Amino acid sequence: MKFRVEVFDIDSGDISVVLNPYDCEKIGLHPGDFAYIVSTGGRRICSLIIVTKNVPEGAVWVNKRILQEMKLESVPEFLEVIPAGPSAALPIIKSKLSGKKLSKGEIRTIIKEVIERRIRDAEISMFCSALMVNGMDLPEIRDLSMAMAEFGEIIEWPYGPIYDVHSIGGVPGNKTALITVPIVASFGIKIPKTSSRAITSAAGTADVMETLAPVSLSPDEIVEIVTKVNGVLAWGGALNIAPADDIMIETERVLSVDPEPLLLASIMSKKISMGINKLLIDIPTGTEAKIEGLDEAESLATKFIELGKLLEIHTRVAITYGGQPIGRTIGPALEAQEALEALANGDGPGSLVHKATALAGIILEEAGIASPGQGKTLAIEAFKSGKAYEKMKEIIEAQGGDPNIKPEDLPVGEYKELFRATSSGYVTHISNKAIVSIARAAGAPKDKGAGIRLHVKAGDNVKQGDPLFEIYAESEERLSEAIIVARRNWPIRVEGMLLKVLG
Amino acid sequence: MKFRVEVFDIDSGDISVVLNPYDCEKIGLHPGDFAYIVSTGGRRICSLIIVTKNVPEGAVWVNKRILQEMKLESVPEFLEVIPAGPSAALPIIKSKLSGKKLSKGEIRTIIKEVIERRIRDAEISMFCSALMVNGMDLPEIRDLSMAMAEFGEIIEWPYGPIYDVHSIGGVPGNKTALITVPIVASFGIKIPKTSSRAITSAAGTADVMETLAPVSLSPDEIVEIVTKVNGVLAWGGALNIAPADDIMIETERVLSVDPEPLLLASIMSKKISMGINKLLIDIPTGTEAKIEGLDEAESLATKFIELGKLLEIHTRVAITYGGQPIGRTIGPALEAQEALEALANGDGPGSLVHKATALAGIILEEAGIASPGQGKTLAIEAFKSGKAYEKMKEIIEAQGGDPNIKPEDLPVGEYKELFRATSSGYVTHISNKAIVSIARAAGAPKDKGAGIRLHVKAGDNVKQGDPLFEIYAESEERLSEAIIVARRNWPIRVEGMLLKVLG
Repeated sequence: MKFRVEVFDIDSGDISVVLNPYDCEKIGLHPGDFAYIVSTGGRRICSLIIVTKNVPEGAVWVNKRILQEMKLESVPEFLEVIPAGPSAALPIIKSKLSGKKLSKGEIRTIIKEVIERRIRDAEISMFCSALMVNGMDLPEIRDLSMAMAEFGEIIEWPYGPIYDVHSIGGVPGNKTALITVPIVASFGIKIPKTSSRAITSAAGTADVMETLAPVSLSPDEIVEIVTKVNGVLAWGGALNIAPADDIMIETERVLSVDPEPLLLASIMSKKISMGINKLLIDIPTGTEAKIEGLDEAESLATKFIELGKLLEIHTRVAITYGGQPIGRTIGPALEAQEALEALANGDGPGSLVHKATALAGIILEEAGIASPGQGKTLAIEAFKSGKAYEKMKEIIEAQGGDPNIKPEDLPVGEYKELFRATSSGYVTHISNKAIVSIARAAGAPKDKGAGIRLHVKAGDNVKQGDPLFEIYAESEERLSEAIIVARRNWPIRVEGMLLKVLG
Repeated sequence: MKFRVEVFDIDSGDISVVLNPYDCEKIGLHPGDFAYIVSTGGRRICSLIIVTKNVPEGAVWVNKRILQEMKLESVPEFLEVIPAGPSAALPIIKSKLSGKKLSKGEIRTIIKEVIERRIRDAEISMFCSALMVNGMDLPEIRDLSMAMAEFGEIIEWPYGPIYDVHSIGGVPGNKTALITVPIVASFGIKIPKTSSRAITSAAGTADVMETLAPVSLSPDEIVEIVTKVNGVLAWGGALNIAPADDIMIETERVLSVDPEPLLLASIMSKKISMGINKLLIDIPTGTEAKIEGLDEAESLATKFIELGKLLEIHTRVAITYGGQPIGRTIGPALEAQEALEALANGDGPGSLVHKATALAGIILEEAGIASPGQGKTLAIEAFKSGKAYEKMKEIIEAQGGDPNIKPEDLPVGEYKELFRATSSGYVTHISNKAIVSIARAAGAPKDKGAGIRLHVKAGDNVKQGDPLFEIYAESEERLSEAIIVARRNWPIRVEGMLLKVLG
């Protein structure tokens, strides 16, 4: 049935339209049902039905989000509403839960219904659970990566090779790309880095970069910026590349999970879409990182490399230390501050600088700019000399940000709480998980200014009363919430050399 | 933060409140976030946050549903909105997905957060997946049943013993209870039958009964009705007994799943809540029933009996034939018509009458009213003599329905499509699954008048052009949808005696 469109400012955090109860009855719809919303031009999306008598009969209330998701340039006069039949993807998801290997066609059906929003949280959660329990083999992951890429934009470059560096995440404070990318780009290497927002972490690279410059760029803008300044730090979600991934990530975020086949396909699908030829994957490894042991890291690395071969993307993998946060800040604005400060000073926290230059070095060697074994030295030179900082300013400007922004200009949460050491000793452990849950309770990543500043790192010697860490929040409520979480999950262990006396 | 309450008619099909964007910013909330809504009296529920500028600052729009869920008698002047911290249930659900046995406390945490709506579709779906993959042992299921019961109302009876009959479902057209309960009650046995609405089927007993009389009864009303007329056919969901079950069923419905531990706990928790002492479980078994083989049925039966022992509910199990629909109708109003007609005439489709009287007979024997082996004969007498029909009229009247309602008074879908045999032969198979998906596509169980009438049953001899089945729908769109599903999943197989010629 066709409905007259009225734009109404309402946001349920979901794809939804609002109808009058009488109209709903006519076409057999109930609140909470799903229906396809179809434009005259044939664009369609599956929407949740909200019902109120306030909508006139014959009309449908839509918000800007749904028009955007349907990629309609202007508000259409009419939209058709068609009750959605049974999902074709659901039986396939169940077959995966019971251990079946999926065919290319089955995988495409799932991805298609994810994009159309025909399947939502409940089904995507079951898909995640199925992948957590039964996994996928490499051909399945290849098909998943390709289906995710093919249902979105694919960027074609007028030149090559195109490089990329990508961390699988899982270690807090990992603002490394904000240093690696400008170093690499400062040598003329083309590196269009896209990243997602935080899934289970306190800040994704896109969240961090967004505090410095817009990250929602179009494919054309990306090509233009890279042609001009060699590097970019963009949010993948704005590009409509592998859009299914961004939708599924929302459910993964709710569940705080990241099943391995989705982790692999999420990254590799975006690399296909971005036209990447040479890829460096960073696998942070250590206690309470996403990957805890070296064996596991090596097994995952092998999968990336094999998957790269199947997808014709030359892939190298760096396993890095992820047993405590990188640098001293966690949260979007705080991390951007730290990265910018390091670039401007040619100096910064050891873990951050060491990691960023090591990764850049591998790419410089791969590109033949540095001789084998000399990449890191060359990268450090570019970092210390200010060459990388100049490149970062160019990138910020090209993306539409202010190149002269100072670290102290970035607004961080006004509501703060400093925690001090209750005894003297050595910092023997900083818990990634506790740090992330405190930062998230404080509002990160949605509240850009929320997060944590670490005053110590593992190995530091502290005296009773020394500052250990500080929580930043944008509201008093969030601060209180974070304090509760901090007390329940104390993140920093301080111990004397004498641990216990027996007998 | 406290907000002034404004009641606004909006239904997103979910527990949600609407706030102004500036207020949201103040307390660190975003569209799609969750927050606890707390009344001055301390009643609380976790709600989805919807955002629109149309709400004045300082105000919160709530709908009647949320006030009802919070069990507030009148509209409060103020409600507090508190951002929800991390879920405590989620890590427990993940541990179940990875194969862990859950403790009583862990199970209670899950059930508590289900009831508070702190966890929703995504988490409940993961819980269902975890149970489908890893199951639960009997002590876990006992703890689950008890947690589900204890977080809701528990009915106490001034007399006993209290009987009940309960089908695990899975066979379409199973309106049996509408005949079994009045037979049993007509002998003075107390049988307060509660049932849920359809999960994955086209009609639950509550959906069917609701077309004859109100099924949303309070605990007091149930006790009053049973004291007066011995039997009742009520919807469990209205009673606030084991409320977690009704919430989880919504997700199970979306996913069309019914994991065994939840199936067991769903039924047994409600029996605890209802104060049942003697229970008869019906396990329909056959091709495309919930349970397909006799071995599986017996294994499930043993679990019910053992669980009954742990819960001190004396439990017997009847395994019944479920390889094709019971009777000739599927869908709430159509099934009520058939049951009422059978009671009024003392006659009806063989499968329906045979099953209903067999179940009633077992209870009559258990209660010592019939000698062993004589129960069914006594039940048939009550059915044929009109004694059961008189009792059913009393029950309908006691529940607030019209006792003189005639089967033909029940409104069924006006939009119909009759399908005929394309060849002559025998009906060798009627597919439960196809029948259910067609009836659901036609709008059942939400559209009460939607469903299917079977003109044939397995074994019948048909000629080309004879009517096979008819779809009923309440709207043209739903009818078209159901016709498409019927063509794709043809439900009735007609074959000649000669199946194939070789050589």
